[in-house]
Amino acid sequence: MICDNIGVNALDHLTFAGQDTVMLAAQYGTPLYLMDEQRIRQNFRTYREALSAAFGERAAVLYAGKACAFTELYRIAASENAGIDVVSRGELYSAMKAQYPLENACFHGNNKTDEDLFYAVRSGIGLICVDNEEELFALDRIAGELNVIQKILIRVTPGIDPHTYDAVSTGKVDSKFGNAVATGQAEMILREAFRLPHVNVCGVHCHVGSQVFAEDVFERAAEVMLRFMAMIREKCSVTLEMLDLGGGYGVRYVEDDPELRIPEKIAGVAEQIRKICRELDYPVPFIMMEPGRSIVADAGMTLYTVGSVKRIPGYKSYVSVDGGMSDNPRYALYRSRYTVKNASHAEDPDTENFSVVGRLCESGDILQENVSLPSATARGDILAVCTTGAYNYAMSSQYNRLPKPPVVMLNEGSARIVVRRETLEDVTALDV
Amino acid sequence: MICDNIGVNALDHLTFAGQDTVMLAAQYGTPLYLMDEQRIRQNFRTYREALSAAFGERAAVLYAGKACAFTELYRIAASENAGIDVVSRGELYSAMKAQYPLENACFHGNNKTDEDLFYAVRSGIGLICVDNEEELFALDRIAGELNVIQKILIRVTPGIDPHTYDAVSTGKVDSKFGNAVATGQAEMILREAFRLPHVNVCGVHCHVGSQVFAEDVFERAAEVMLRFMAMIREKCSVTLEMLDLGGGYGVRYVEDDPELRIPEKIAGVAEQIRKICRELDYPVPFIMMEPGRSIVADAGMTLYTVGSVKRIPGYKSYVSVDGGMSDNPRYALYRSRYTVKNASHAEDPDTENFSVVGRLCESGDILQENVSLPSATARGDILAVCTTGAYNYAMSSQYNRLPKPPVVMLNEGSARIVVRRETLEDVTALDV
Repeated sequence: MICDNIGVNALDHLTFAGQDTVMLAAQYGTPLYLMDEQRIRQNFRTYREALSAAFGERAAVLYAGKACAFTELYRIAASENAGIDVVSRGELYSAMKAQYPLENACFHGNNKTDEDLFYAVRSGIGLICVDNEEELFALDRIAGELNVIQKILIRVTPGIDPHTYDAVSTGKVDSKFGNAVATGQAEMILREAFRLPHVNVCGVHCHVGSQVFAEDVFERAAEVMLRFMAMIREKCSVTLEMLDLGGGYGVRYVEDDPELRIPEKIAGVAEQIRKICRELDYPVPFIMMEPGRSIVADAGMTLYTVGSVKRIPGYKSYVSVDGGMSDNPRYALYRSRYTVKNASHAEDPDTENFSVVGRLCESGDILQENVSLPSATARGDILAVCTTGAYNYAMSSQYNRLPKPPVVMLNEGSARIVVRRETLEDVTALDV
Repeated sequence: MICDNIGVNALDHLTFAGQDTVMLAAQYGTPLYLMDEQRIRQNFRTYREALSAAFGERAAVLYAGKACAFTELYRIAASENAGIDVVSRGELYSAMKAQYPLENACFHGNNKTDEDLFYAVRSGIGLICVDNEEELFALDRIAGELNVIQKILIRVTPGIDPHTYDAVSTGKVDSKFGNAVATGQAEMILREAFRLPHVNVCGVHCHVGSQVFAEDVFERAAEVMLRFMAMIREKCSVTLEMLDLGGGYGVRYVEDDPELRIPEKIAGVAEQIRKICRELDYPVPFIMMEPGRSIVADAGMTLYTVGSVKRIPGYKSYVSVDGGMSDNPRYALYRSRYTVKNASHAEDPDTENFSVVGRLCESGDILQENVSLPSATARGDILAVCTTGAYNYAMSSQYNRLPKPPVVMLNEGSARIVVRRETLEDVTALDV
């Protein structure tokens, strides 16, 4: 199985977090998002322990809620003593509903409105990661109005290409995010920030990309950032105390994806940080990392019911399910790969090749191409798409006016609804 | 301007449906969807009159709500005496909220659940377009249980390639939709349907694709369908009465898109239908067409506020706005082109090239590349993306927990909210 929280029981049904997925589908209906609470907590622990082993108390993991943000996830983050990375008032509001301690939150994003900044400062947010000059000046003004000196990071673009797909690569010089080291713009915005009275520049942030598997991407990013921090110390006589390396470690969606060992990766980055700091005679900064996908992706699974199996002689065969790009747009957006199983016949040999498609009225509504499934797959079977904890519920829409599926959290034999299923009344609730 | 409902007023502001977009942005906030009611009604009239000129009473236009489905649009469709094409219980429910007469509705889609079929039959829907055998048998059973003989169409794949982008092409033999003429599967499902007691096969449906500009696509599709209908008459002694040609006529998003003249296109298709019918000695069937995009696309505009203008020397320049792929995922999905204007400085020369990007935390969150805008474009300016009436609100998500923008309907100088802005409480309302 693609992840060790997936198995098969005596009824030939797929299990997730030890529970029978076919029974869960019957109980809660489909489409259905499942999440495995113990896996989420284990993923938090992995980051926490690796950072702690490398940096002691001088490091923090911030959960990037853009991967999956509902109230219960912020409760879990709080109980794991994790920080959070929020990117909107909506995420901040969700964290507030969870009574999450906002001093541990950092507000990111390339375009914060005045309303966002006012809301974040007034809520007592720990850090705001400033993306650009317009935002910097707006924040200084708003913090002044609220009589606050706001702690900030500045987003810096280190110019590292993580060799991932264009749409999820953010650390190159040419980016909508941040301020490039290479062009001198990172230095310029820091100089501006140091002059402003209502912001306190604590450090710098970078994010090199998503689904990063390449060997030394974070090591290279850390080196660029530390050399930049040393240059700022040299030129501006300010020793920045925090270095936020963002997130982006890759997650295994299919058998031939590599499996990253986070503790070893972080140990390698830590070693590089200490080496460069020694070389530059720079005090090792407080290190932050912001995993999103690698906290929640393998803690998720989506269940669907098969509606039709269509074989077109000489062409291909289709299995249609009762969800699609409205609950998982990632194949439509990025041609993302997923592992798909017939949960009702989990031990049957996967002998036939299918396109697994959704129910939406659009040819591009494909969940996955070239999926091997049992030939007997038929209307009524439950299909499981694995590793859907990240960027599935988060990106879901009501396209075709389909209600959003619920999220059911599994935990040591129990199951509870943490996001309820949308009703037809909900879907039309905003209509006048 | 890309459409004649767009203009510039004395304040140098862009106007839409005769109203000042900068004033509308100030009044309703941004991001903001605008719709032009008179344009929607005019587009309905264009189809109605063209079909009526060609076929008299023996034709109907059905609005494909997947392009944009909120309650008020169904009220407008009802008042224009248009039929509707629905693809989910959510769309059907929206139509019911509008007190739309459901005998004029047809239920489409490649994967209808038992619940969908039960709900549709019980609601007294006019037609169900059956996609596949599993659905056919389920519908016959459910109609039997409800003691109804349900009128149906059968979805047929004529094998026409409309030469459009893969993700929006649905009429080729290899399709998740329908039953191919070429493989004999269309004949097979019709033979099955004729035998079943609780369905009444009224005709056949096809849909060749989306954004179709090519010369004779509908003519070729109509010919394949009519020859198929004649073959069915020959082999099964059943004269099918209805031919639904679906939708798909292209819409003009940018200056170099062609401009289709719908009346002439429909006249051409009608001529072909009459010619083939004469040749086959087949009675001209009742003709249906299902425009979605061409009813609402040019009746829509989206307004944003600029947050940041970022110039990266030697690379490119970015304008960031306060929305993005959450309210318009079409560039991210299909690299769709749009016309973008600085609504605050509508007469200023467009002298500089920008990437117009959204506020979402993802590099792929781009609204449009290579946009010419005034060099003075700055934080606070209102940006207008034109021709966003179709597949923008419909595909919107709450990604990054961004609330959905409202839809404001403009009509002869008045403006009214037809979909209200989502609140932070709405965004988290399903969270437990």
